[in-house]
Amino acid sequence: MNAIVQEQPTLADILREALDQGDAERLSDLMSAHAAQDIALALAELPRQHWHALFERLDHERSAEVYAHLPTEQQTLLLENLDHDEATRLIGELSYDDAAAVLEELEDEHAEAILGALPESDQQVLTSLLAYPEESAGRIMTPEFATVQPEWTVEEALDHLREHSEIAETVNTIFAVSPEGQLLGWVRLKELLLSRPRALVESTLHTDIVSVEAHEDQEEAARRISHYDLDVLPVVDERGVILGIITVDDVLDIIRDETTEDFHRMAAVADLPLSMREASMRLLYRKRIGWLVILVAVNILSGTAIAFFEASIEAVVALVFFLPMVIATGGNAGAQASTLMVRALATGDIQTRDWFKLGVKEVLVAAALGLAMAGSIWLAGNWLGNFEVANAIAIAMFLVVVFGSLFGMTLPFVLTRLRLDPATASAPLITSVVDVIGIIIYFAVATAILQLN
Amino acid sequence: MNAIVQEQPTLADILREALDQGDAERLSDLMSAHAAQDIALALAELPRQHWHALFERLDHERSAEVYAHLPTEQQTLLLENLDHDEATRLIGELSYDDAAAVLEELEDEHAEAILGALPESDQQVLTSLLAYPEESAGRIMTPEFATVQPEWTVEEALDHLREHSEIAETVNTIFAVSPEGQLLGWVRLKELLLSRPRALVESTLHTDIVSVEAHEDQEEAARRISHYDLDVLPVVDERGVILGIITVDDVLDIIRDETTEDFHRMAAVADLPLSMREASMRLLYRKRIGWLVILVAVNILSGTAIAFFEASIEAVVALVFFLPMVIATGGNAGAQASTLMVRALATGDIQTRDWFKLGVKEVLVAAALGLAMAGSIWLAGNWLGNFEVANAIAIAMFLVVVFGSLFGMTLPFVLTRLRLDPATASAPLITSVVDVIGIIIYFAVATAILQLN
Repeated sequence: MNAIVQEQPTLADILREALDQGDAERLSDLMSAHAAQDIALALAELPRQHWHALFERLDHERSAEVYAHLPTEQQTLLLENLDHDEATRLIGELSYDDAAAVLEELEDEHAEAILGALPESDQQVLTSLLAYPEESAGRIMTPEFATVQPEWTVEEALDHLREHSEIAETVNTIFAVSPEGQLLGWVRLKELLLSRPRALVESTLHTDIVSVEAHEDQEEAARRISHYDLDVLPVVDERGVILGIITVDDVLDIIRDETTEDFHRMAAVADLPLSMREASMRLLYRKRIGWLVILVAVNILSGTAIAFFEASIEAVVALVFFLPMVIATGGNAGAQASTLMVRALATGDIQTRDWFKLGVKEVLVAAALGLAMAGSIWLAGNWLGNFEVANAIAIAMFLVVVFGSLFGMTLPFVLTRLRLDPATASAPLITSVVDVIGIIIYFAVATAILQLN
Repeated sequence: MNAIVQEQPTLADILREALDQGDAERLSDLMSAHAAQDIALALAELPRQHWHALFERLDHERSAEVYAHLPTEQQTLLLENLDHDEATRLIGELSYDDAAAVLEELEDEHAEAILGALPESDQQVLTSLLAYPEESAGRIMTPEFATVQPEWTVEEALDHLREHSEIAETVNTIFAVSPEGQLLGWVRLKELLLSRPRALVESTLHTDIVSVEAHEDQEEAARRISHYDLDVLPVVDERGVILGIITVDDVLDIIRDETTEDFHRMAAVADLPLSMREASMRLLYRKRIGWLVILVAVNILSGTAIAFFEASIEAVVALVFFLPMVIATGGNAGAQASTLMVRALATGDIQTRDWFKLGVKEVLVAAALGLAMAGSIWLAGNWLGNFEVANAIAIAMFLVVVFGSLFGMTLPFVLTRLRLDPATASAPLITSVVDVIGIIIYFAVATAILQLN
């Protein structure tokens, strides 16, 4: 009895239908009834020939809104399929930070052609944004913001904002600057509104400034916005002159992407810049084969270790039966420990200087885990083997769990010290290394206790 | 040659010194020079007896600010150490959403005692917030917000906001409601400022409302804020009446916590509500032992499988040498595939209905990975064993990698269908299952090709 599940048609299905029927009125209704983010999401599911048709239906401003929310890969593809004038117009409609992000993905020649066709002032702004290093705060800031001066009255400040708020991406928080542009403080728009019109901006100014230098990493900008609960973070040069702002919604994207990178590293997948939906098979292959090859080299050592102790295996076959339990448990405990550390380091919950304190805690927790697991396997060993085998595998279990946990816990700190990403301490890497050392510990203990040599 | 690294004293160190010396002036300077978030962070590092001393130095408003940023565990501990009046005063100073979050962590009796001592109006608001289910949108919303009505003039609306903005957590986005409180639209404060004073609010109103129902999950609220790039999300009842708002900074915390939960699940650690720094050893033990025991039960099958094929091992010892490489590679490919899916499902990049399309892609990628790995091990097999052994282990490698990848890729979808968290498809779980099946495939292929029976 199979129930037929009738799924709701998605926005993509509805759009495709309207496009196939050439129903212009329905299309334009759909375009205005849905958020730009949702149209972009639906577009990403449609075959490529539909994109162009759909973009022609959208007015200029709306198409820029939808375009800004498309995944990077599709932004590039779509732009390559538009003619030069249409492409230039589209880029011109985008906000500066979005335009810079699109241009950096294009072939140099194509990007320069588009840049050259934009108005002089846009060219200057975009060129200066693109001059900052990739993934720096300067690269993702928007240079569209309004400032006030502390010696202005509240009334003057509000008039100034009324004139300039069209170009400012956000005016919820307003920055006060010196005539040279140096950042002096900030004030909330609602505080200005509440103040007497004749009061000076100075009197409501907050001077506890949190800012980021344009060359600092975008992750640092994200960390500050998140830590200080900011809605906007000013970006400054080395003299403290404000150059642009980064808003909290940019940061949500950065945090999501950085976290995805950590997840992938933790599973021994190299950086995968695209979404799973978009990633080509070739790319997926390339990002996965590297670690598989590196890890198989470690596994060769496991094979060698087992071959080395072959005599022990032949003498006591029960040893092979318990081997997977002991080394897998060590690897699992190690994967637990490394993940706990990697994530706590990433969120700032712990710092590298906490290593020793956490190490002591881990030894004790690992010892408790090791004892519990050793106890269970000792019972199984007595049941399926004999008293001496049980002792050997229980001692091995305890040692392997403690070693695995300490190794898993330590590796992220070592990687951080070496200025590598702690997330490289992936479960597969920990498991493979613990396998090798675990096999050696296991047979060394067994050989000693069972006097096999 | 050891260089002595002189570390910068942290804010915690400086605070501790000032407290030990009883330097009141220095303390009060430090309190005003640093952000509440940083003082809270430093406080968390100081021994418990210092907390009280430090809190006495802070004025009422400032101590509530610092308190709001302490980790949950320490909020509870500190409150338990304050006398009843001080505790009530502190809770009274907090914003409603923060106060509700603290009260729900306390013992019922203690929470009721504090609640009972608060002004009637605060009691009502807090009781209604606490009536929503845990982790629902209603529980984390703040009921402090200002609304306007569409038929008001811009001038009337601004006057109203001036009067009410002290109690409103954010007035960057203002919601327009009917006289019954039904949500009708939204307008940015800067748009009101730009409009002619005599114009009606209606004329600048946006009617594409994104809201969340109070009983929906807080994760859904986070997803909408993030997807639609909102700075504030209205929370409504089933009739569309606005009950409160959720701001983007609340969402940053939710996203961080949900992601941490996923990271821990992916490493076979049960939900760990506290930070690593705060988690007791007892708690860490409890959250880790469960999966270790479950997985060892799976590993018993691996041992059984190896024991079953013991005759093959004794006949061709080279088979044991290559076994770890083959099954570990299968497990690693599986861990890669499951993590890619779990993360893409969590970010909304893919949906469960994409399973088939992604499955076809995964089979092809896995086949390519399997061929590459089989090729390398075939060469090694010829070198270290013989032509027939090489064929057997190469075929086994190919099959195990394809099986591992498909299993790793499918499990997160199956778990989602069963309404379980896809992140339960952890690397240790995938590895353990692929070990068992991998061993069976390996020896089955070897037995057939090498005609061992």
